[in-house]
Amino acid sequence: MKRTPLKEIKGGITAPQGFLASGVHAGIKKQAAPDLALLVSVKEGPIAGVFTTNRVVAAPVVLDRAHLRGKVGRAIIVNSGNANACTGARGLADARETARLLASRLGVATRQVFVGSTGVIGHPLPMARIRAGIPAVVTRLRRGGGSEAARAIMTTDLAVKEVAVTARIAGHRITVGGMAKGSGMIHPDMATMLAYLTTDAAIAQPTLQRALKAAVDPSFNSISVDGDTSTNDTVLCLANGLAGNPLLTAGSRELAAFQELLDHVCHSLALKICRDGEGVTKVVRILVAGARTQAEAKQVAKTIATSSLVKTALFGEDANWGRVMAAIGRSGVPIAPQKLGLAFEGIPIVKQGVGLGPAAERRIDRVVRRKAFTITVDLGQGSQQAWLWTTDLSYDYVKINASYRS
Amino acid sequence: MKRTPLKEIKGGITAPQGFLASGVHAGIKKQAAPDLALLVSVKEGPIAGVFTTNRVVAAPVVLDRAHLRGKVGRAIIVNSGNANACTGARGLADARETARLLASRLGVATRQVFVGSTGVIGHPLPMARIRAGIPAVVTRLRRGGGSEAARAIMTTDLAVKEVAVTARIAGHRITVGGMAKGSGMIHPDMATMLAYLTTDAAIAQPTLQRALKAAVDPSFNSISVDGDTSTNDTVLCLANGLAGNPLLTAGSRELAAFQELLDHVCHSLALKICRDGEGVTKVVRILVAGARTQAEAKQVAKTIATSSLVKTALFGEDANWGRVMAAIGRSGVPIAPQKLGLAFEGIPIVKQGVGLGPAAERRIDRVVRRKAFTITVDLGQGSQQAWLWTTDLSYDYVKINASYRS
Repeated sequence: MKRTPLKEIKGGITAPQGFLASGVHAGIKKQAAPDLALLVSVKEGPIAGVFTTNRVVAAPVVLDRAHLRGKVGRAIIVNSGNANACTGARGLADARETARLLASRLGVATRQVFVGSTGVIGHPLPMARIRAGIPAVVTRLRRGGGSEAARAIMTTDLAVKEVAVTARIAGHRITVGGMAKGSGMIHPDMATMLAYLTTDAAIAQPTLQRALKAAVDPSFNSISVDGDTSTNDTVLCLANGLAGNPLLTAGSRELAAFQELLDHVCHSLALKICRDGEGVTKVVRILVAGARTQAEAKQVAKTIATSSLVKTALFGEDANWGRVMAAIGRSGVPIAPQKLGLAFEGIPIVKQGVGLGPAAERRIDRVVRRKAFTITVDLGQGSQQAWLWTTDLSYDYVKINASYRS
Repeated sequence: MKRTPLKEIKGGITAPQGFLASGVHAGIKKQAAPDLALLVSVKEGPIAGVFTTNRVVAAPVVLDRAHLRGKVGRAIIVNSGNANACTGARGLADARETARLLASRLGVATRQVFVGSTGVIGHPLPMARIRAGIPAVVTRLRRGGGSEAARAIMTTDLAVKEVAVTARIAGHRITVGGMAKGSGMIHPDMATMLAYLTTDAAIAQPTLQRALKAAVDPSFNSISVDGDTSTNDTVLCLANGLAGNPLLTAGSRELAAFQELLDHVCHSLALKICRDGEGVTKVVRILVAGARTQAEAKQVAKTIATSSLVKTALFGEDANWGRVMAAIGRSGVPIAPQKLGLAFEGIPIVKQGVGLGPAAERRIDRVVRRKAFTITVDLGQGSQQAWLWTTDLSYDYVKINASYRS
């Protein structure tokens, strides 16, 4: 198989062939910012989805799960400014009406339309504004509209998050694009995090679903900004087959090459979410090695990654490794304190459970001033490992979240 | 049985008969604040203890657990400014030497001496200063030294935390006193939280141990400031029998009356810790009812109580109940969203999983401006309940914890 290396290109979700997008201000947000985004493929195709594990689930997630049973997608419409969560039967009716109105406008089947919402929980969707916004957002649909759509799904996000990557796979140029929003409520197993991926690859739906799941675990499911998961998390990937490649089949080298594209887009968007986390000044990788099982490694990593004491120390550029040790100890995993090792960016600070003293501390003092670094824990109990990306906890995090609704 | 009502009195740990205490600046802290506290009973007596569940355990906890097997106590010495945690064999040797030096000075058995440490993790105890401090702190021992000792165990605490309560039980005046420190790393199952209780009651050690455990669960183990538990948590209760009552026996009304005293002291100290939490402006009770089991109720309460998004909303006086709903949903408990009820200080805001709208929101907007209130969750699945006290997450929390060591 001949393959060109991965190459990032412009265009986001509209980078692959045959995708149009747009964004408008429909008046759902109080401020004059875009709040209604639309993505349409010129051709229907297989769609794959991964959703929140939160048991309190927003109406659009209920609708999308139902539509996903049809396995075919054509359009995705997303509003920001209102999560349509905890809105009961009315909320579900509103999500359904949104899908129906858009389907009718586009002349496609309602079940090929997917809906996303993000914003405040518990307020009914302003349907008059959605109804008026749909013709407007359809009219603006265009080939280069990816960034406009990516902007319209933002809430407290500071930066537009989009990426696209392309490669020639066995003679066919295949492209994967993506956009995401999310900066608060970010936590493993997804959190107010919406990500929409597009590809022109020809691929069957079950293969696409497996590939998406594989890409989401080490990316969107491995970041933690504040330990909260949301009611609305959704990752959807829509494929239209316009690349003209033979169907990507399970176990093939072509599928592996496509997986690399998908992994790259998910990893890139997940890191963009971390960097754009509410009030974030640092992104730190917590790597836990030497565990008996991957689940134990992940549990320890999660406890460290969500510790307010660890996160405020990161913000203060304080090499307070004792807080990392305390987090390891309360993780619930039966660790052996006398076997613990700890290093910052490869510089050891704890061996066999004991601190290595002032000289080592001075060396890690320099590491914690960086914008990004890795904290490595060695449990000394086995060969399994896991990692999470976390962020610091700053004044601005408190400021943004104390005043979000007011 | 004749009994007078509970009455709070002054004196803290030295309020019961036969207890002396003191505090000095031994130079363990950089700043000129007291950092070495001593409590001595004029007579040896049964001692009960409850310790951290953190698997990374500080040296003084290892020592105290060993000495507790002797079931008899006479003195407790506590330093602040250094946690003597992650200090390995040297840390344990230092804790042992501290106990031995004090025992020798007091002329008591080393195993009747208990040791506590709180402060920065991972630095060796400055033993030269401890050795010099012991004669000084012994010399200052006095009948009214309770507050001085309570001040010497503080780290980032803003207020001295002590209480004493007394009642006449079957003709004998029995008093229980206590002091505590703790404002960061406070979390259920104990967190950088040291509490020392004294009583002049005559009680056998196994009875005292059970009574202490019963008092700690609904008090110290039901508060959460930041979700972190520490390596050093300790609650010790020393009884010297000087009240002259007949031994308090299991199942007796006298023991029940004593339990009330112990409960009162633990509850009062626990709430003082919450109110003095790092940067705390509000103390909020999270009550979860309608659960199938108490464990499920506690799990839901804990998820809400530790959510950074809920805690920043409390600080911002933002009645953002959607964040409470999202926390309930991600607690891991199989809740039924359509059965959920939510109320702030008795005012319903969610019924059957659906928000009750702007009028209800305006009413709870007034509740969240209070310094203390209760958020009640009804899971609608059973009759079990549990509660936790939590606090808000403020700029000052970040400030205090970002700069703790510098």
